[in-house]
Amino acid sequence: MKIILDCMGSDLGVSATVGGAVEAVRTHGVEVMLVGDSAAIREVLTKENFPRDGLTILDAQDVITMEDDPVYAVRNKKSASMIVALQALADGEGDAIVSAGNTGALLTAATLILKRFPGTRRGALCAVLPSGDSRAILIDCGANVECTSEMLVQFAHMGSAFVAGVMGVESPRVGLINNGTEYKKGTPLQVETYQLLKAAGEAGQLNFIGNVEGREVPGGGADVFVADGFTGNVVLKTYEGAGLLFARLFKELLMSNTRTKLAALSIKRELGEMKKRMDYKEIGGAPILGVRKPVIKAHGSSDAHAFASAIGQAKKFFESGAIHNMETALGALNSGKPAEKEVQCK
Amino acid sequence: MKIILDCMGSDLGVSATVGGAVEAVRTHGVEVMLVGDSAAIREVLTKENFPRDGLTILDAQDVITMEDDPVYAVRNKKSASMIVALQALADGEGDAIVSAGNTGALLTAATLILKRFPGTRRGALCAVLPSGDSRAILIDCGANVECTSEMLVQFAHMGSAFVAGVMGVESPRVGLINNGTEYKKGTPLQVETYQLLKAAGEAGQLNFIGNVEGREVPGGGADVFVADGFTGNVVLKTYEGAGLLFARLFKELLMSNTRTKLAALSIKRELGEMKKRMDYKEIGGAPILGVRKPVIKAHGSSDAHAFASAIGQAKKFFESGAIHNMETALGALNSGKPAEKEVQCK
Repeated sequence: MKIILDCMGSDLGVSATVGGAVEAVRTHGVEVMLVGDSAAIREVLTKENFPRDGLTILDAQDVITMEDDPVYAVRNKKSASMIVALQALADGEGDAIVSAGNTGALLTAATLILKRFPGTRRGALCAVLPSGDSRAILIDCGANVECTSEMLVQFAHMGSAFVAGVMGVESPRVGLINNGTEYKKGTPLQVETYQLLKAAGEAGQLNFIGNVEGREVPGGGADVFVADGFTGNVVLKTYEGAGLLFARLFKELLMSNTRTKLAALSIKRELGEMKKRMDYKEIGGAPILGVRKPVIKAHGSSDAHAFASAIGQAKKFFESGAIHNMETALGALNSGKPAEKEVQCK
Repeated sequence: MKIILDCMGSDLGVSATVGGAVEAVRTHGVEVMLVGDSAAIREVLTKENFPRDGLTILDAQDVITMEDDPVYAVRNKKSASMIVALQALADGEGDAIVSAGNTGALLTAATLILKRFPGTRRGALCAVLPSGDSRAILIDCGANVECTSEMLVQFAHMGSAFVAGVMGVESPRVGLINNGTEYKKGTPLQVETYQLLKAAGEAGQLNFIGNVEGREVPGGGADVFVADGFTGNVVLKTYEGAGLLFARLFKELLMSNTRTKLAALSIKRELGEMKKRMDYKEIGGAPILGVRKPVIKAHGSSDAHAFASAIGQAKKFFESGAIHNMETALGALNSGKPAEKEVQCK
């Protein structure tokens, strides 16, 4: 199996992506196609004296930056690493793609180059989060600021297929994020979506557990949290911010005097395990769902180990058959409906 | 000064509210009017052998439950403790009110009985949260699920006056919760509200710092976080849930073996201080802003100490002159606009 890696999107530069690819070849047993400035890539391989087995290089001279307008960049930077990498995936030169580049551009380019499933309104960005004692996904977490109830139902099906296939959860619990659990809660969007998801649940297409409040996201109240991209983004960022605050306060607590510093030393191992459990570097990246091939958006500040995790996640995504299951579920859902042409790139 | 306390709304019953009143008389130097089932109130005072100085009792035989429909309850339970207490406040028998009862009913009843400021579209529920190294407010956090940009601007002014007066923050930083910081971010509601708040900032009416992401709420990026009630509720609940998860994980970490248990013992004091800092029982309650008198919604599960804090907060609210400042700010803002009759009780 071959994973295509966009080497140019990382805040930490080519050394992080190439280093991640080398680690992934060793630990995940995959081949990796490195896409980007071939001279820079070769320089890292030589400088670090990395083994080259399992690695191939595909040259791409241009780069889409975080500042680029997604649609403009996708239309005008044909030789950018992200576009070249997606084209290689579309042409069957690899099985899945990992990129840490501009999220809007990746979503737009993946939609244009890989195509959405028939009848699928939008591709969605999906975050994998620590939730209760395991992990859950939040879909959409920012790609589609304004959504229709039809889009949210499609997100529920995509997310459910991903969690079942890639995370191995049998009949994932799907919850609709709302400001209360009663069926009448929320804006008209949530009220309408609740009824559609309830019907899907009763038809045995989904395991819909109803409306869930924000606290259930960290609390583990569902396996798939469904939201419009605005709400999902706010949930994701609030959760991240809370994690940063609590980590800082606990660190300050442990550093406040000699006694607490000694205590910190004696629980160092357990603290490390907890940090690891909460760390996105271990989780991998954020899948983009709704397109015909596995796409993993890696965190912009990913280090080599984070890229290796994201590549491992892309491998699992491909092997799981989740893509096939999404296409089947969405096909059944959308049978007869025409696919929308317009591309979302908010 | 006299604080009116609705004694019947607490999950823990009359003993928590009455106990809180006794503590508040002692620690905050206020008088408290206890409103509710006078027999039950007297029973607690006798059983606990509480001093009665500073306490008066106003009998109210009926109770609005959490299950009651707000509008129906307010219209039909005239002798409920919440209604009797609000009427006493409207009649000038006290200076501020604290209630742990049905939030929707309290907002509706406060709006009907105390009246909104002229031209004010809605009363808003306002959460006081740990934010960075101090505290911030989130307005609205659930009272108004659907909002207009005009409402959000009014929330910004109310919240700013509250934080300046009650929390003593000079020229509070007002941030609009959004899915990114750029002025074009968000749904049409946020895009429109951004422009109105920007204009208010340029006119020197507010210290508007722009759009803020969810992570700034725990992170301390503003003093007043403005959102529609749907978004605010989701932010609040996600933050709460994250706190519960991290607290549980730390506890499990510290209880995992003898070594960690010894460490836990040696940092017991510091852990207690951190818990206290994060605890709503210390913060008090959630002010309802937009009505003509100080109203504090206490947490339903508040214990006596939490009620005492809420009463102390109500005292501060009254003394601060925030009500007068809100009326002035909203008056200037709304000059000429007719007050809306309809009452919101989502």
